[in-house]
Amino acid sequence: MGPRPVVAEVRRAVREAVGDVPAGALVLVACSGGADSLALAAALAFVAPRAGLRGGLVTVDHGLQEGSARQAAEVVRVAGELGLEPAEVLTVTVGRDGGPEAAARRARYAALDEAAERLGAAAVLLGHTLDDQAETVLLRLARGSGVRSLSGMAEVAGRYRRPFLGITRATTAAACEALGLRPWEDPHNADARYTRVRVRSRLLPALEEELGPGVAEALARTARLCREDADALDAWAESAYQNVQADSAISEKLGPLPEGSVVLDIAAMGDLPVAVRRRVLRRAAVAAGASAGALGASHVLQIDRLVVEWRGQRGVDLPGGVAASRRYGTLILARGRP
Amino acid sequence: MGPRPVVAEVRRAVREAVGDVPAGALVLVACSGGADSLALAAALAFVAPRAGLRGGLVTVDHGLQEGSARQAAEVVRVAGELGLEPAEVLTVTVGRDGGPEAAARRARYAALDEAAERLGAAAVLLGHTLDDQAETVLLRLARGSGVRSLSGMAEVAGRYRRPFLGITRATTAAACEALGLRPWEDPHNADARYTRVRVRSRLLPALEEELGPGVAEALARTARLCREDADALDAWAESAYQNVQADSAISEKLGPLPEGSVVLDIAAMGDLPVAVRRRVLRRAAVAAGASAGALGASHVLQIDRLVVEWRGQRGVDLPGGVAASRRYGTLILARGRP
Repeated sequence: MGPRPVVAEVRRAVREAVGDVPAGALVLVACSGGADSLALAAALAFVAPRAGLRGGLVTVDHGLQEGSARQAAEVVRVAGELGLEPAEVLTVTVGRDGGPEAAARRARYAALDEAAERLGAAAVLLGHTLDDQAETVLLRLARGSGVRSLSGMAEVAGRYRRPFLGITRATTAAACEALGLRPWEDPHNADARYTRVRVRSRLLPALEEELGPGVAEALARTARLCREDADALDAWAESAYQNVQADSAISEKLGPLPEGSVVLDIAAMGDLPVAVRRRVLRRAAVAAGASAGALGASHVLQIDRLVVEWRGQRGVDLPGGVAASRRYGTLILARGRP
Repeated sequence: MGPRPVVAEVRRAVREAVGDVPAGALVLVACSGGADSLALAAALAFVAPRAGLRGGLVTVDHGLQEGSARQAAEVVRVAGELGLEPAEVLTVTVGRDGGPEAAARRARYAALDEAAERLGAAAVLLGHTLDDQAETVLLRLARGSGVRSLSGMAEVAGRYRRPFLGITRATTAAACEALGLRPWEDPHNADARYTRVRVRSRLLPALEEELGPGVAEALARTARLCREDADALDAWAESAYQNVQADSAISEKLGPLPEGSVVLDIAAMGDLPVAVRRRVLRRAAVAAGASAGALGASHVLQIDRLVVEWRGQRGVDLPGGVAASRRYGTLILARGRP
């Protein structure tokens, strides 16, 4: 008899996710002890030796809850039983910048990065599920910031991999049960002060109630489609960015510009669809030194007006001390006032 | 003193929407008597003569509610007071195919098309607001069908224009009040058997409650960004579609194919991002006669596997009696079995 279908499903997901990891390499699982990452740890313990890989585990002790050190030690103990080696607790100190969720996240990834480097891991697996992805899309949707944002979490991002983005939380819980593993229930997951908890416990059920079942799956599918679309548009914008650089004859007319300035030929942008043109302009602003994080859609729109609604208006100040201005049929992005 | 800001806002929206309509032409407003389309009618009555246009009104009597004929006659009476001319009731018979909402919608647009043709209207204005757009995006989201779907309703679609997609329902109601107009409250708008009513009355308030204010605006902004992105990707796919047609040397090797067959060169598709390649494949299937409405994402995925995961698998049957198959490095979309 084969394994229960839910167990087979989580194992298959991990097998596919590590398919390109070189033989003999170490793959780490980041495990909180919750059902998602516990199922992930068990699947890695099964898959790794059969795929010629080493499977290890790290668990982060954020030090934010009573008994967190004991809980982390328990995860390491289970890792030993599963045959994951090395298995380590990473103790972090969570700051306050940007709110508790962001601070914890930053501390966690810093510790994971450090451990991956130190242990020489080829990949770090994260337990985010289809439900997490759906929640992420809903949270992003409320910002109205376009397809890159709606594309949610990536399956692969640098050393991190998320094998379970196509697997529901119900499946990971069922897999743990089938394997006799007892997941830890993080009390934070029931704390309605966290937006994500409210999305999970109130909004997604409300959406399912009013729109019918399958909303989480639909949101996860939306994320995947949006990621593909965003990748394609970024590729187009990158190639267009290269093609709309002003040539040296034009640049000479402009005289000396601050180091790192970007000069685009406005006529060359004429045929680009608006979605691509605005991506090119954002790309150019960042290349000239504008801070990517602070550069909003409204800034890009103002730059775009210099391109397509030119009525002699003054230049546009951008975050990071960069300004956009128009001269001799070019758009200039340069440090300093326009 | 100028008009109240809300009145100025709805007028400005109409002025921009009819800016390219040729002088002397007739612009119709489709008006139910509800706040949105009543504000639209009033704004058109103000804007049209000042823009050198004629403004008229049509109202559809669906015959589904007690007193609907009286209500329609009342709308026409108000149109006369506003100075809209012609002003007509369009009486329709609503069938049952596809559910009550779809059937009413079909009957309504058929009547509007007929009236626009008969009266020689250059444009027909529809009263959909930012809130309607947000509801549409939420409804589409639950299907998980990509950016074209998330792009919601178009500002311009053939003869139809939606000047109010950037204006909230609260603004149209306030404009009616400022102008002394008494909107009709459609009892259907409070009938929770309609999905859209539940989205409006339960889901959007729940989203605002949990995620903070501005969710409707964010969804409308998402729609606009998705529309721009979808347009750009469709343009890319259209041009790629032309570039990946198999040349005659290859086609000759294949021998005779059914009329209307499409043959694509698989090697030529190698550099396309997945988002564009799948759009090209959908485009090709429809060009070969597959029915666009019934062609789902899973069909396109199956065709795509013939292109990128070719292991000698058999062809793919598509809705509309078209099949996709692979031969001599080409993808063939043709009527009949593969």
